[in-house]
Amino acid sequence: MKTMVFLGLSLSMQASFAQSTNKLPAPTVDGIEFPAGYQDWKLISVTNRDDNKTLRAVLGNDAAIKAIEEGKTNPWPDGAALGKIVWKKEKDPHWPTADVPGKFVHAEFMFKDSKKWADTHGWGWARWVGMEQKPFADAKGSAHASCIACHTPVKNQDWVFHKPALLPSRLP
Amino acid sequence: MKTMVFLGLSLSMQASFAQSTNKLPAPTVDGIEFPAGYQDWKLISVTNRDDNKTLRAVLGNDAAIKAIEEGKTNPWPDGAALGKIVWKKEKDPHWPTADVPGKFVHAEFMFKDSKKWADTHGWGWARWVGMEQKPFADAKGSAHASCIACHTPVKNQDWVFHKPALLPSRLP
Repeated sequence: MKTMVFLGLSLSMQASFAQSTNKLPAPTVDGIEFPAGYQDWKLISVTNRDDNKTLRAVLGNDAAIKAIEEGKTNPWPDGAALGKIVWKKEKDPHWPTADVPGKFVHAEFMFKDSKKWADTHGWGWARWVGMEQKPFADAKGSAHASCIACHTPVKNQDWVFHKPALLPSRLP
Repeated sequence: MKTMVFLGLSLSMQASFAQSTNKLPAPTVDGIEFPAGYQDWKLISVTNRDDNKTLRAVLGNDAAIKAIEEGKTNPWPDGAALGKIVWKKEKDPHWPTADVPGKFVHAEFMFKDSKKWADTHGWGWARWVGMEQKPFADAKGSAHASCIACHTPVKNQDWVFHKPALLPSRLP
């Protein structure tokens, strides 16, 4: 039944998954499934982090993009999922004052379900680390406490750092 | 026939376009049509520019993403289109060492057609400026010379600055 895993992914995603791993990454210890195909979610925002020398892209699933277009992001609706892709930054060899993505660090996610995740502020939190996409867990055996600790400064905007970036067709 | 303009766009795109302008931005003076729905293209890379204090996201249409997955990006195939969205950067009020998108500056594009655009290195070059998405043209009445001047350092990588960012399922 291995081929069933790839249903719903694009043809190119199927090919690359098949070539690289032949299976999806494992769920987290908190029971969150890997969001196959997240690379095809739509753009919400980008970040430059000077403290840890990373660049980030924030993507959203269809429910998240719909919420943005309708201006309903505080709180985000159940079903919305946000993904943040993190790379170490490098100098662009052809433009010395520009930073571009280098090594892939991890991809991390927030899945909104206000009932299922009532104990963790309405979000399921997850991270898959490195090119091998290993599920993250801290010393206490969960990703939730670590994620929530960092996101506490934005608890008043439904625990999400990013305001959607201003675009002509996606006015926040 | 105005409603026909929106065929092929997502429901949410239709709604936002209808609310904001009721029509698509004008073509450039070089005869390049506005790529309606580019906001829904897929992520290729991001940039931090210290010289002009901007953040950028690079997106690609389906043909561009397919080319990346197949490792065929030098040269890019006809039909590939790349878009770069540019924002002025601002400090994240909740994370002082992070920059996030502020004012939308412009979106600029490269459309690969090696025959149609043989005189401009195989690419049609275009930019639409500001939230009003005004077509860009320099003093000579074209966008091509200005775009090509800046991209000359990367003429050996088919005039494209960005290598696709490393992702578990999109190995460059």
